[in-house]
Amino acid sequence: MTNEEAQLALDELRAAIDAVDIRILALFNERAGVVSGIGDIKKQMTMPIYEPKREEEVFRNVISNNHGPLSEGAVRRLFERIIDEMRTLQRERMARETGKENSK
Amino acid sequence: MTNEEAQLALDELRAAIDAVDIRILALFNERAGVVSGIGDIKKQMTMPIYEPKREEEVFRNVISNNHGPLSEGAVRRLFERIIDEMRTLQRERMARETGKENSK
Repeated sequence: MTNEEAQLALDELRAAIDAVDIRILALFNERAGVVSGIGDIKKQMTMPIYEPKREEEVFRNVISNNHGPLSEGAVRRLFERIIDEMRTLQRERMARETGKENSK
Repeated sequence: MTNEEAQLALDELRAAIDAVDIRILALFNERAGVVSGIGDIKKQMTMPIYEPKREEEVFRNVISNNHGPLSEGAVRRLFERIIDEMRTLQRERMARETGKENSK
């Protein structure tokens, strides 16, 4: 492979990654929307926001559906970050809404 | 909303999350496959594996395509984790292959 051929191949693979990343990002935001829906119901019903049992279900779902190349540990760490960021987003949203209600 | 209605609605939203998660997982593994392809070319051409400039491109791509509800900070942290896990996977694969070559 010449340097030029290598560069062309790399450019193509990087464009593929950028395209996959935009699809991942869309799913992250879609997931955040569903999590908000869950938060709304829980708030209305005064149910606890944090449910460790449900988190374990989330991990079980992805780990049992994982066929690699990512390892089970990698998948768990990735979804830990996802859950963590969605929880932060929920907390910020709730704080904003509570703020609004208090200023009514 | 009765407790039963709330529970049904929650079950439905959770099933939606589980389905989205499986699609996210498939894209993570697809991305890892493309990263392996890049690693193979770099190894063949003895190019550096780690390129901070390319990482900034990855962040720019997702941040400029983000329309929320996730914040820019959340998107950056999520993709930092993705990049980090893919780098770990690459490193493990390279170490395994180098081990094999040395034992030939």
